[in-house]
Amino acid sequence: MVAERRTVGRVAPGGDTRGMSEATDRPPIAEHVITFRVRYPETDPVGVVHHSRFLQYFEMGRIELLRSLGHSYADLERQGVFFVVTRAEVRYRAPARFDDVLTLTTRLVRATHVRYDHSYELRRDGTLLAEGQTTIACVDRAGQLIAIPESLGMTAP
Amino acid sequence: MVAERRTVGRVAPGGDTRGMSEATDRPPIAEHVITFRVRYPETDPVGVVHHSRFLQYFEMGRIELLRSLGHSYADLERQGVFFVVTRAEVRYRAPARFDDVLTLTTRLVRATHVRYDHSYELRRDGTLLAEGQTTIACVDRAGQLIAIPESLGMTAP
Amino acid sequence: MVAERRTVGRVAPGGDTRGMSEATDRPPIAEHVITFRVRYPETDPVGVVHHSRFLQYFEMGRIELLRSLGHSYADLERQGVFFVVTRAEVRYRAPARFDDVLTLTTRLVRATHVRYDHSYELRRDGTLLAEGQTTIACVDRAGQLIAIPESLGMTAP
Amino acid sequence: MVAERRTVGRVAPGGDTRGMSEATDRPPIAEHVITFRVRYPETDPVGVVHHSRFLQYFEMGRIELLRSLGHSYADLERQGVFFVVTRAEVRYRAPARFDDVLTLTTRLVRATHVRYDHSYELRRDGTLLAEGQTTIACVDRAGQLIAIPESLGMTAP
Repeated sequence: MVAERRTVGRVAPGGDTRGMSEATDRPPIAEHVITFRVRYPETDPVGVVHHSRFLQYFEMGRIELLRSLGHSYADLERQGVFFVVTRAEVRYRAPARFDDVLTLTTRLVRATHVRYDHSYELRRDGTLLAEGQTTIACVDRAGQLIAIPESLGMTAP
Repeated sequence: MVAERRTVGRVAPGGDTRGMSEATDRPPIAEHVITFRVRYPETDPVGVVHHSRFLQYFEMGRIELLRSLGHSYADLERQGVFFVVTRAEVRYRAPARFDDVLTLTTRLVRATHVRYDHSYELRRDGTLLAEGQTTIACVDRAGQLIAIPESLGMTAP
Repeated sequence: MVAERRTVGRVAPGGDTRGMSEATDRPPIAEHVITFRVRYPETDPVGVVHHSRFLQYFEMGRIELLRSLGHSYADLERQGVFFVVTRAEVRYRAPARFDDVLTLTTRLVRATHVRYDHSYELRRDGTLLAEGQTTIACVDRAGQLIAIPESLGMTAP
Repeated sequence: MVAERRTVGRVAPGGDTRGMSEATDRPPIAEHVITFRVRYPETDPVGVVHHSRFLQYFEMGRIELLRSLGHSYADLERQGVFFVVTRAEVRYRAPARFDDVLTLTTRLVRATHVRYDHSYELRRDGTLLAEGQTTIACVDRAGQLIAIPESLGMTAP
């Protein structure tokens, strides 16, 4: 499923990426591209992917971005480290349909000690279908905010 | 969501629960009816409820049958008692569509010390849309088979 | 599923709909409250409702708000009138869990000739679990923007 | 996603594949193997793939089996040819978990002029997680039974 790892690097200090357009104007801390095919039950009576599914695609993008950096989210959860989504925003540009092959670019655009901001671009061939942004926070099993493990190598300086 | 509780306890002989196998030829141990409306993302590009959703409806039926008998499945899980589906069968008779109001009859048709068999009939008005049968087994948090708690009051004699 | 219809029509000034943007600083054009129970497969391995589900709850809220005003979204689609989500934003405040009874307040906060903005507040008892905002646009079967039917009675003057 | 095409051929006349074990005792008409990774929202609060998801995996198996034979189910639907599930059965042997890489073997075990029977085996490494069987029927846009197009090359003699 994972197609390509484009960029991995540390962002310059002082980055604060507010806003959907601003966020994508900065060099990402890490970037990853996955390609996948739309499944039948992901589409709705109008024949297009239900808008709620895009958040599931974005989550796949985050998980595979993490894997591309050598980390398994499944392992993190087994170690008691969880990421919960605290904010999500999606702008829908064009519909995706059953059996479409989609390309999702996931970018880590901001990292603090406890939160990551990601941005997303979902395309079919060259066409932009959706853009999104999420903030995820690192919590323990009880849901309490904890520091992102240093082993992930992607925290604020 | 729960509309009506029809029968609880052993029904008189002659119950008309004809179904897919001998299990449903007997009077049910317990029976419950729920009514609910089909949600938009439960339907697929053909405009009908995706066939996988029926197993989710059946699960709702089991949970509400249990609640009608005074038990909360959420509480059971908190106590370390889980039910896992070991077998499921569905026969699809007619399509269900978005916004349809459906009526699901759930019957507990067989109880052993560790397993329950349920049967299901899903209808829209008088029309039978689907019939199903499942077997669920009682397990602990580790997935090991355990005896169904006597407190549920529905185990083999 | 629909529990209560609180307000229909233009509410008096001073309505307390503080939210995520200026859109919700105005009195809502219409408002509706639904109550529903979290289903088992809506929750994820951490035991909380998956963040993508909230967009499905919001859609239920919109559909029931419309119904409370005397309109059926299923009928609209049969007539060739569709609403597509063009933007969605969610802020997650606290987790929802299996079997929780949730209350969703849906407010129509802005109407133009072709678009509706809604805002949402999801609560369990008094606790705010999530807030959201969406923009939906009116399109025909081919996905082309069309005027919202006047029969809906909720368009810009 | 598609891993391997194992066998394609026509079944001997007189094949009637009743029963889950019998069905898999015969040489399949066609067989295909796909490999995929379990997604996060496919798992439930117990941390295992929800039992309803297996029917979605089986559908993916059918669609990819068809593709391996040179046919696109998306194209078929655009031409007005639909397949609806009329019966499904699953036996669950062991749980699948988030991030597991699963292998699904899909076999076309019986073909009539209007129906296909498929059988399925879902495995993680060598371990059998589930077996299933479905019957699908060929219908037109109105849901009326029609003959399976000869172009598919897999109908009864």
